[in-house]
Amino acid sequence: MHKILIINTGGTFNKKYNPISGDLEVDQEAEALDSLASKWLCKFNIINIIGKDSLEMTNHDRLELLATIHQSNNEKIIIVHGTDTMHLTAEYLADSDLEKQIVLTGAMVPYSIDPVEATANFASACGYLECLQKEGIYIAMNGLVGPYEKIIKERQKGRFVLKNIT
Amino acid sequence: MHKILIINTGGTFNKKYNPISGDLEVDQEAEALDSLASKWLCKFNIINIIGKDSLEMTNHDRLELLATIHQSNNEKIIIVHGTDTMHLTAEYLADSDLEKQIVLTGAMVPYSIDPVEATANFASACGYLECLQKEGIYIAMNGLVGPYEKIIKERQKGRFVLKNIT
Amino acid sequence: MHKILIINTGGTFNKKYNPISGDLEVDQEAEALDSLASKWLCKFNIINIIGKDSLEMTNHDRLELLATIHQSNNEKIIIVHGTDTMHLTAEYLADSDLEKQIVLTGAMVPYSIDPVEATANFASACGYLECLQKEGIYIAMNGLVGPYEKIIKERQKGRFVLKNIT
Amino acid sequence: MHKILIINTGGTFNKKYNPISGDLEVDQEAEALDSLASKWLCKFNIINIIGKDSLEMTNHDRLELLATIHQSNNEKIIIVHGTDTMHLTAEYLADSDLEKQIVLTGAMVPYSIDPVEATANFASACGYLECLQKEGIYIAMNGLVGPYEKIIKERQKGRFVLKNIT
Repeated sequence: MHKILIINTGGTFNKKYNPISGDLEVDQEAEALDSLASKWLCKFNIINIIGKDSLEMTNHDRLELLATIHQSNNEKIIIVHGTDTMHLTAEYLADSDLEKQIVLTGAMVPYSIDPVEATANFASACGYLECLQKEGIYIAMNGLVGPYEKIIKERQKGRFVLKNIT
Repeated sequence: MHKILIINTGGTFNKKYNPISGDLEVDQEAEALDSLASKWLCKFNIINIIGKDSLEMTNHDRLELLATIHQSNNEKIIIVHGTDTMHLTAEYLADSDLEKQIVLTGAMVPYSIDPVEATANFASACGYLECLQKEGIYIAMNGLVGPYEKIIKERQKGRFVLKNIT
Repeated sequence: MHKILIINTGGTFNKKYNPISGDLEVDQEAEALDSLASKWLCKFNIINIIGKDSLEMTNHDRLELLATIHQSNNEKIIIVHGTDTMHLTAEYLADSDLEKQIVLTGAMVPYSIDPVEATANFASACGYLECLQKEGIYIAMNGLVGPYEKIIKERQKGRFVLKNIT
Repeated sequence: MHKILIINTGGTFNKKYNPISGDLEVDQEAEALDSLASKWLCKFNIINIIGKDSLEMTNHDRLELLATIHQSNNEKIIIVHGTDTMHLTAEYLADSDLEKQIVLTGAMVPYSIDPVEATANFASACGYLECLQKEGIYIAMNGLVGPYEKIIKERQKGRFVLKNIT
């Protein structure tokens, strides 16, 4: 099996209910991926950075993400990312001419509220990356996985769809 | 995206607690995959056959599975199967010279008890199959996905591992 | 067994994640109590009114609650209520000289995120009310159940405690 | 609030899925009540004894239960018990002329599979016991709570019902 690096940047995937504030907040402990690894009976190689809702992600944050990718020896990388700006980050990485295979994934529903969608998105990214042989930036969401240009969030429906299917 | 056929044969993946008998039983309604599709915000093409614990699967059942595969037009197939005889069925299908890409998957913990492992196994099979270009019989379990000869159940540990790792 | 009327006014007990907005909202369908009744294998007699976060509850809403209580023939009533102004409503009802046995309950964590605390609060109210023989206004939260003056929300800790314990 | 002693004897309430054997087994660690206390934001005073499916409970086990009750200083006791012989144990305790208030409770569905019914049964026992002033043996199951003679398991329906209601 290939060694995959997971870069966890936050987003809805990692949100957790805070009973004191009554709000959902990005879990800075990033327990979601640890729970997933433990229940899936496998180990992940995880780096936690940024820890934000993707609407609050700045250019500085994307620079930090890029630096983290550059510093790693892994060819195969999964980025856990908020869904609202996933496409923006995908384009940013595509413009950076990385000689890596990178799959972005995330969730519409926090793992801590219902783990099914988050788990399925993430695991489909793992399976795809295991088989992948071509460098590039990919997205894995809601049963779709492929080059990032083809898969896009449809906000009204609250899920990712294939682009330009009529 | 490729059209994937899912053949659901039962196994632990589909087990459900029966409060009257106090036992876990293979759910003949096969609600697990329907729940997964609904929460993953996508649609599956599912055929439910056999509906057994894999220890009770007979040669007649495997013949039914083979016939179902032959009758389908899909090149890409996921088989949800009990873990105890998953390898036996994989060998049986490998001997049948099918010109198809087939991934067997299942679960150590029923989806209805805790959906995380079942969901992750299944979704990693989906991601792998989406990218796959070579015919053959594969297994996706516990973060591992690849040719069936390389991935095997380790009964004492209760999970699948890479073969011949010492 | 006594016939208990449940008046559901909303609050965190009934909050549900909306994947489109990314927010928790009071579920106007009030599915939480229906789910609880179905899993507890019993039937509830429920009236849904107001449907608000308790911080947004107005005097007009409390008047509606009072009218609903007056109109009912039940002597024993459970009110599901948000926790932030539960005490305010308890005082308001206490000042209304109702000849009823009323227990207010709610949750710090939405039933839809984790059902345990919401279920336990509600069921402890049911058990208390079943045995109760004295009119008055009571609160059941976090393992405590008794006259409303004695049980109060401690905001920093995010739970209800006995008053005047030092 | 009154000090309640919880005597946990096992039963379905405490059953847990064992992925190695594929069976449900009474959890000897008794994590269910610890989880319930932690999520309900309160503390329980628990003694774990016997740890069996109630169909396997012997006269010797009931003697141990009786001895545990005699040794405690608590007037108010909850016994978590399997549902199949809950009535047998209730009668046994009723014949023992204990000067205590004792509520037996349990679950049709293990807390670890779905916590709602187990939690609701247990919490209704807590609420009832808090208000109770009369010695005796009681049962709290499926929304019913009262003297043990009145509440009985209906095996075909898989739930407890009021006796002799026609």
